Amino acid sequence: MSAPIRWTLADGRDLLFFALPGRAPVPVADLRPLSPRDPEPSQLRFDRTTGQWVIIAAQRQDRTYKPPAEACPLCPGPSGETSEVPAPDYDVVVFENRFPSLAGFRRDNDRSAGETAPNSFISAPGNGRCEVICFSADHTGSFADLPAAHALLVVQAWRHRTADLLGRAGVEQVFCFENRGEEIGVTLAHPHGQIYGYPYLTPRTAAMLDQARAHRVTHGTNLFADLLAAERAEGTRIVAQTDHFTAFVPFAARWPVEVHLYPNRWVHNLTDLTDDELDDFAAVYRNLLGRFDRIYDAPLPYMAALHQYRSDGAQADGYFHVELMSIKRSATKLKFLAASESAMDAFIADVTPESVAARLREL
Amino acid sequence: MSAPIRWTLADGRDLLFFALPGRAPVPVADLRPLSPRDPEPSQLRFDRTTGQWVIIAAQRQDRTYKPPAEACPLCPGPSGETSEVPAPDYDVVVFENRFPSLAGFRRDNDRSAGETAPNSFISAPGNGRCEVICFSADHTGSFADLPAAHALLVVQAWRHRTADLLGRAGVEQVFCFENRGEEIGVTLAHPHGQIYGYPYLTPRTAAMLDQARAHRVTHGTNLFADLLAAERAEGTRIVAQTDHFTAFVPFAARWPVEVHLYPNRWVHNLTDLTDDELDDFAAVYRNLLGRFDRIYDAPLPYMAALHQYRSDGAQADGYFHVELMSIKRSATKLKFLAASESAMDAFIADVTPESVAARLREL
Repeated sequence: MSAPIRWTLADGRDLLFFALPGRAPVPVADLRPLSPRDPEPSQLRFDRTTGQWVIIAAQRQDRTYKPPAEACPLCPGPSGETSEVPAPDYDVVVFENRFPSLAGFRRDNDRSAGETAPNSFISAPGNGRCEVICFSADHTGSFADLPAAHALLVVQAWRHRTADLLGRAGVEQVFCFENRGEEIGVTLAHPHGQIYGYPYLTPRTAAMLDQARAHRVTHGTNLFADLLAAERAEGTRIVAQTDHFTAFVPFAARWPVEVHLYPNRWVHNLTDLTDDELDDFAAVYRNLLGRFDRIYDAPLPYMAALHQYRSDGAQADGYFHVELMSIKRSATKLKFLAASESAMDAFIADVTPESVAARLREL
Repeated sequence: MSAPIRWTLADGRDLLFFALPGRAPVPVADLRPLSPRDPEPSQLRFDRTTGQWVIIAAQRQDRTYKPPAEACPLCPGPSGETSEVPAPDYDVVVFENRFPSLAGFRRDNDRSAGETAPNSFISAPGNGRCEVICFSADHTGSFADLPAAHALLVVQAWRHRTADLLGRAGVEQVFCFENRGEEIGVTLAHPHGQIYGYPYLTPRTAAMLDQARAHRVTHGTNLFADLLAAERAEGTRIVAQTDHFTAFVPFAARWPVEVHLYPNRWVHNLTDLTDDELDDFAAVYRNLLGRFDRIYDAPLPYMAALHQYRSDGAQADGYFHVELMSIKRSATKLKFLAASESAMDAFIADVTPESVAARLREL
């Protein structure tokens, strides 16, 4: 992949063009009269009852909500007056979210919550990064529909953003993800994902690293590598295997459709993968999303979450992987996260992981 | 409150009638040809990557789904042939869920996950209890609409169930809750709640108790009492105060509408409240739900979660309280739990807790 072309939007936001071999982006000036950006659009607040940070981003209430296709801000805008991507065409683009939950980089952002008065409220600036990644200029379609080379370009863009953001001051965790489908609240139909640079370790990641640390103390090995080996040995929940990757429904799956995709070799994030491994990753990832759409013969609403880690310190035992999940529990019914899940984090699954894996294998 | 009348449904499930003063239930035989119950309808599986139990309850897929009002299984069934409540009328009833996620009590249920091989899969029988509580025989209406004495009867029934289930073998935590509204997946419109007896500490409760233990080590005091005092001192997020209770939007609220209700006196669960306090609790709880329905001038979809604790051991620092939350972020829009929340537990709130508190105060 050649280096992306850098561009700047009317309100100063970064825009990056990632191009397929032989293609050259031709951006035009962004002529939209955009309001200046709020340098600190959000606040972090620490929930002392759970030990978790919450992002309070109050001005996002008016963000773009289900625009008609002809007003899609993610389609190419050759006039420079209609779109977040002022250009006649593009392959893959990444730009800063116009309505970010996190913005700005600050090295002195102290989020330690240890030594405080027993009754104080703890907050911090909402620094970090929220980016949008458009998978294709085509308003319809999905990641699963991309040609192989195009899917690889998206993955290369993820790798580029991961390397860049991990190097920024105050970014603790880089999270590439996709929300797909109105059923989970997606307000823009154009195929796209998002990339967050969190200024703290997210609660689920922190919990997983705690488990991995305890496992290493007890057994002297990496938790995720041991579990991957166990899934491969048992076999009943395997969905797909390639030279470099293994996909399985986890033993204790929480979602009606859930698949985890691990590289067979322990790495921390996308930047550690060889070109061969990255190629394989793009192919198997796309393959899994294709199976998702065939479960109910309709586009499946899903969330795709890339779990990435730094290679040292508290994140040293992290193991790069993707967690794919859907709330659709049958062709016509959704799984809702009601009080047991939402208030107590106690998940109740309606299907056995083994039956879901068998179904996904045969698709 | 007089002792409830005990009854047995056709498949052997318990049914309890709680009656208003001067009223006497007149149940009839349950004549429905119900299938025998599965004694172990689910399995617990331990997610070693997060340290959390997941309930796999695969036969609930066919549970009752949005029946028409005339076929409502929670309305009184005087013939004994149509309803979960075979009686011409009732005030408040509690019965075992016909499609339970947890069932049966077992003292030898060992769920310790400590000393295991590094790559083993850990599971346990899905023991515990799932009960349904019908707030009223009236198919329409809601908790907020109940007369004061009737709301108190519901709260008394919660207290009864809490005392009973805390005494059962293998029940670690008693969770009284209500899911209200189709938007969060409620499939029966009849006003009702649920009561779970979990065989493990739910993940959110465990996280809160960890925080409370660390707080006591550092400060020597109860975390929740300190935070309640801080909220009362600051005042900006208070929604309602009575002699015995304080309701506030928490400093780090995760949901578009969220209110926590604490007794001013530290207790562990409903069974610790005096009759005066229970009276006050029913009144302020009903008052809060009334405010909820006035926010958007329409019935608000909500979840109500009673956080209850045992008074000793690992739960000794627990502080009884209710967490009320709604996913409705405006009159027309819902907050969806997409990848940041669902995959990483990283919540992003679209409104400031202070603005929500101000709105709820004035309603």
